[in-house]
Amino acid sequence: MSVLVVGSVAYDGIETPFGKVDRTLGGSATYISLAASYFVNNVRLVGVVGNDFNEQDMDLLKSRNVDLEGLQVDESGKTFFWQGRYHYDLNSRDTLDTQLNVFEKFDPVIPEGYQGSKYISLGNIEPSLQRKVLDQVKDPRYVVLDTMNFWIEGAEEELKKTLSRVNMLIINDSEARELAEEPNLIKAAQLIRDMGPSSLIIKKGEHGALLFTESGVFSVPAYPVVDIFDPTGAGDTFMGGFLGWLADTNDLSDTNLRRGVVFGSVMASYCVEEFGTSRLKNLSRQDITMRYSEFKRISEIPTYNGEL
Amino acid sequence: MSVLVVGSVAYDGIETPFGKVDRTLGGSATYISLAASYFVNNVRLVGVVGNDFNEQDMDLLKSRNVDLEGLQVDESGKTFFWQGRYHYDLNSRDTLDTQLNVFEKFDPVIPEGYQGSKYISLGNIEPSLQRKVLDQVKDPRYVVLDTMNFWIEGAEEELKKTLSRVNMLIINDSEARELAEEPNLIKAAQLIRDMGPSSLIIKKGEHGALLFTESGVFSVPAYPVVDIFDPTGAGDTFMGGFLGWLADTNDLSDTNLRRGVVFGSVMASYCVEEFGTSRLKNLSRQDITMRYSEFKRISEIPTYNGEL
Repeated sequence: MSVLVVGSVAYDGIETPFGKVDRTLGGSATYISLAASYFVNNVRLVGVVGNDFNEQDMDLLKSRNVDLEGLQVDESGKTFFWQGRYHYDLNSRDTLDTQLNVFEKFDPVIPEGYQGSKYISLGNIEPSLQRKVLDQVKDPRYVVLDTMNFWIEGAEEELKKTLSRVNMLIINDSEARELAEEPNLIKAAQLIRDMGPSSLIIKKGEHGALLFTESGVFSVPAYPVVDIFDPTGAGDTFMGGFLGWLADTNDLSDTNLRRGVVFGSVMASYCVEEFGTSRLKNLSRQDITMRYSEFKRISEIPTYNGEL
Repeated sequence: MSVLVVGSVAYDGIETPFGKVDRTLGGSATYISLAASYFVNNVRLVGVVGNDFNEQDMDLLKSRNVDLEGLQVDESGKTFFWQGRYHYDLNSRDTLDTQLNVFEKFDPVIPEGYQGSKYISLGNIEPSLQRKVLDQVKDPRYVVLDTMNFWIEGAEEELKKTLSRVNMLIINDSEARELAEEPNLIKAAQLIRDMGPSSLIIKKGEHGALLFTESGVFSVPAYPVVDIFDPTGAGDTFMGGFLGWLADTNDLSDTNLRRGVVFGSVMASYCVEEFGTSRLKNLSRQDITMRYSEFKRISEIPTYNGEL
């Protein structure tokens, strides 16, 4: 099934303890699309770039069969630019510079050919814009939403309106606690599901992720990556892998959602191995399926015989 | 097989957002022994209490078949007392009072009848005292060590001598990072295993635990406890459940270590449901086996059919 991805396309300046890049392709829609492209052939990207966007970055997305009809080129300004520096432990970062540029006036227009898309990924943008996307698509089968503390704090009512229209919310643990105003993640998950989305994924970085559905909880660890070079985009990559798998299989059972969470984790675990999108350019099917098996091996709880 | 437990026996004053107890039975050896008592009948406790130790607390330990021949009663002073207050999110706490009392001069003497014990649990005490215990036991089969940042910072050389003589170290994530001087837990685990213990468990509180052995990593989530009343003793309870299972089965294969980690997690998940040791007094076998199955269900990664 087709996947529609709406979000930011950006240039990132990234500094980690292991190196530095001044300007590399980034943005939520970029990472989501690249990750999803390993599962489905018709990923459709809606976003905006400026007059400085490189042809070779267009080519990279095209090489992964990402449809760019919905990528607006706004010649009046530059592409969204973000610069950040990760701390020693890679679990936190400082934003050094944010230039919204053409992204500030981003108005998502869904091309006619995209309006029948069945699997919709709403990357982290203003909640009212996320709803505007939903207003333009006809009969989507599954809508996944990302958001962040900025909108939880500054646009809570708008966000709640959007939440009531999606199937799945994917956020991190601190965002979940803030949105639900509840420190216990299990309770927070229930409160958030009461806001609309029938299911919820809480991302916990190096501690993996939790999936909450009607039937209960599923916990997946993070892959034990020894050399994490750059965490940028890992969450978006997770989302792309998750949605890509669901769209490929068109199976929304809880069991298949679990598989989606594992495939999302697989993609994220590759993402962090190199700077920016580098590692997402040419993975093989075998890379992905082998790591899925590794996840299974790492978290396998053996049965036991006999009485206690 | 027999289990020897050496550590503190204490009274705790505990305050959480959900309530307060002024004085309740605590201490690492207490929690370890109670948890292990659900798996083996011959748990032997070595520790010290003062002249204020209650008969009913003795009786509680005896009711779980914990052998108290090695519990010294020092009439010259009072029992170790600790008082702490947990923060709103239960992930951190402030120590309000620590009175070492008779524990300050604790000199572990292993009764002759205990010296052939096969499974040894060295609770969190001074590293040189932990070695003194090992000097008194004959041919132990499996030695598990706990420690804390206080010894990592203040007695590093002594701790490293002790580490070279144990099979398993169980510590939390911040302690592992500090001991290895390495923020990446996967790398830290390798560095710590190079110090002596062939295997290592890193406890991550609400994020579960990781087991590192020669054959790789095993990740178990935390049980999704909705109402955590009191985290005190959860780590020690984990250790007791882990070692109890190993001693009961006398099987040190990696597969069985995994089971031990799950049983440890099961016991810890019960521990936090009530204040102090309350929940550890009368669990049933079915409570334990049912929750083991729940852990398996929560972390089960489904297979998938077909090609990507």
